[in-house]
Amino acid sequence: MDYARVFDDAIRRLHAEGRYRVFIDILRNKGAYPNARCFAGHNGSRPITVWCSNDYLTMGQHPKVIAAMEEALHDVGAGSGGTRNIGGNTHYHVELETELADLHGKQAALLFTSGYVSNEATLSTLAKLLPGCIIFSDELNHASMIAGIRNAGCEKKVWRHNDLAHLEELLKAAPADAPKLIAFESVYSMDGDVAPIHAICDLADKYNALTYLDEVHAVGMYGARGGGISDRDDAACRLTIIEGTLGKAFGVMGGYIAADRNIVDVIRSYAPGFIFTTSLSPVLVAGALASVRHLKGSSVERDSQQAAAAKLKALFADAGLPVMPSVTHIVPLLVGDPVKAKRISDILLLEYGIYVQPINYPTVPRGTERLRFTPGPAHDEAMMHDLTKALVEIWDRLDMRLAA
Amino acid sequence: MDYARVFDDAIRRLHAEGRYRVFIDILRNKGAYPNARCFAGHNGSRPITVWCSNDYLTMGQHPKVIAAMEEALHDVGAGSGGTRNIGGNTHYHVELETELADLHGKQAALLFTSGYVSNEATLSTLAKLLPGCIIFSDELNHASMIAGIRNAGCEKKVWRHNDLAHLEELLKAAPADAPKLIAFESVYSMDGDVAPIHAICDLADKYNALTYLDEVHAVGMYGARGGGISDRDDAACRLTIIEGTLGKAFGVMGGYIAADRNIVDVIRSYAPGFIFTTSLSPVLVAGALASVRHLKGSSVERDSQQAAAAKLKALFADAGLPVMPSVTHIVPLLVGDPVKAKRISDILLLEYGIYVQPINYPTVPRGTERLRFTPGPAHDEAMMHDLTKALVEIWDRLDMRLAA
Ligand SMILES: Cc1ncc(COP(=O)(O)O)c(C=O)c1O
Ligand SMILES: Cc1ncc(COP(=O)(O)O)c(C=O)c1O
Repeated sequence: MDYARVFDDAIRRLHAEGRYRVFIDILRNKGAYPNARCFAGHNGSRPITVWCSNDYLTMGQHPKVIAAMEEALHDVGAGSGGTRNIGGNTHYHVELETELADLHGKQAALLFTSGYVSNEATLSTLAKLLPGCIIFSDELNHASMIAGIRNAGCEKKVWRHNDLAHLEELLKAAPADAPKLIAFESVYSMDGDVAPIHAICDLADKYNALTYLDEVHAVGMYGARGGGISDRDDAACRLTIIEGTLGKAFGVMGGYIAADRNIVDVIRSYAPGFIFTTSLSPVLVAGALASVRHLKGSSVERDSQQAAAAKLKALFADAGLPVMPSVTHIVPLLVGDPVKAKRISDILLLEYGIYVQPINYPTVPRGTERLRFTPGPAHDEAMMHDLTKALVEIWDRLDMRLAA
Repeated sequence: MDYARVFDDAIRRLHAEGRYRVFIDILRNKGAYPNARCFAGHNGSRPITVWCSNDYLTMGQHPKVIAAMEEALHDVGAGSGGTRNIGGNTHYHVELETELADLHGKQAALLFTSGYVSNEATLSTLAKLLPGCIIFSDELNHASMIAGIRNAGCEKKVWRHNDLAHLEELLKAAPADAPKLIAFESVYSMDGDVAPIHAICDLADKYNALTYLDEVHAVGMYGARGGGISDRDDAACRLTIIEGTLGKAFGVMGGYIAADRNIVDVIRSYAPGFIFTTSLSPVLVAGALASVRHLKGSSVERDSQQAAAAKLKALFADAGLPVMPSVTHIVPLLVGDPVKAKRISDILLLEYGIYVQPINYPTVPRGTERLRFTPGPAHDEAMMHDLTKALVEIWDRLDMRLAA
């Protein structure tokens, strides 16, 4: 057994496919986002404009969030020092769970160290508690949901993306008395399209299935209080479990679920990914608490973000750039080739000081490689014009087609 | 299918076994650890002394750590805003990985959002990259390693705890050309015993197996620079992968592995649990960096922690309390019954203001329920005498036997 050769080959395959990932080393400038410093490929740092952050509303730089984190840091210190059960359950955790339950109109909520872990731990545990459970999973579900379903070891039926007829076909074909769970997302983050929540809940009612909705890219962003698409569409009460992150629109880090008290209690009591790990730092929890509370009461950030996204889509379309048909705050530009996507991203960074990461397989299907822009409240029109101009120049230089 | 009944039953089972967990709601007082405030079961907060934190060296309150986190908070903000690949790779991450690689004398290191995720992601990915891989796992390995091995879907052989003869028997019985990985811990955190690292590496050499060592409870704590038991025993260079946490002795939050460059690159490139999640907040990374650097150069914290543990063990033994034979900084007291363990813990908290969590199944095997004390540099002799006295009184009250 030659281990080194196996590992070498695994790396070589990535290079051969043009999808070996090089991480761009950056530091954001607090208070001046989207400006940042880049440390890649030169001595010292260089100023850049960031176009691909998931801190959609720049809440990671909000004075209230920073102040809350600073206060917690000085009040209780850096880490929690333990699992939730053994010394790591602080008053901040309890308060944030109450706040998140309220945000989604649920009885209870539960914090995890990340959105990834909340999906993996909840789905795998839930299915284990329901022997014979079948999970119906949208084909574009995030890797963390796929991991949870896989690790559940239960039967899985994949329905075509947002295809209600296909979902119903699969539900109908399953034994009537088998436990069923429908798992899907609200905003699909790489395409920017949205799930028909009510119609999916109708099917869940008809076939007595539980529902699990990942609102990771929607919490803080949609609804009068930032409760996500299920808030905007008045559907939260119809969903069994809503899952979210504290690391995107809320600007900090961590994940959670919100649901009935008993379901939360079951996950809290049985999920290894929740139980056997140091709890979120109280500093993060304090920051997230400030962020969630702020966005419950303020829509300014959401509104100006939506305006920025609409503006950028229009600029791209007018310039003939292949902007994909997103109905949300996400602005994806189709490239369709991993090497070209990386090439465009490299030129943007090195020649224009513009940072947008190429999105390649396995994050998106092969052949749909893209650039994904996330304009925020702080990206002004001048930046958008500069970006559009740069893209048109590069499209031209690489002999890629612009629409007439 | 009556879902509510299934969930109710699952909770009822826990109550029936006396192992339903109630989280004690506390806030540590920065600068005054082990003093804290407890919010459970009364109005407002009440002062308590914490005896069960895994912030073993109180680094979570160290001025250098707090200062570094405050600086990062003001320099770059709350969260990273993205995955490591998409906008979430900050200069802090790069620096900390370099520092951790150096700590363990390895070519490279890789950060994860927790020690749990580092174990789960690394073990499951490694075994998938090595078709036919057999993982040899110590029977007392942590839940996060068990999850990783389970999710790898490979063959697993469990060897009796620290039993070299049994490990060799299993290695010998496996096909000579099958890829093999031996997974174990250095300090077993619930018993406080230590693995014979060199002897295990001898077997790995003999049978051409890779080795994976979880040093979660040892990093920062052992070795001249805090590199763990493998540092103390001069064995780091013999191990394929060393895994650690930033959430215990380092006092912050997060996890990592250190290994050869190629192995780290493979995990970085293939592990879903690494790829598809918002990266650690730069604030945490900055704090961990300060902590690791400090403990590389200072042994004062380690030495006084060891002195405190030795002192507490001696006091318990002299009082006839059933202290378990730990050879490390951990001081476990055997109770052997989940209801009694919880009862003692409740009395300590309510009547004595002493907080130590009962450790029940599934964290430890049934019948070995215990109280687990983690004295630190800040627990003084008066506190230890108070604790010992309280325990003797409770042992007496509950008609439990003290040694002569
Ligand atoms: C749809 C979706 N769910 C879950 C996650 C994981 O959340 P987190 O970054 O908090 O781990 C992500 C992205 O990271 C995501 O895009
Ligand atoms: C042996 C061991 N490995 C891994 C972990 C997980 O580390 P973390 O708390 O950083 O998730 C723990 C405890 O939490 C542990 O005890």
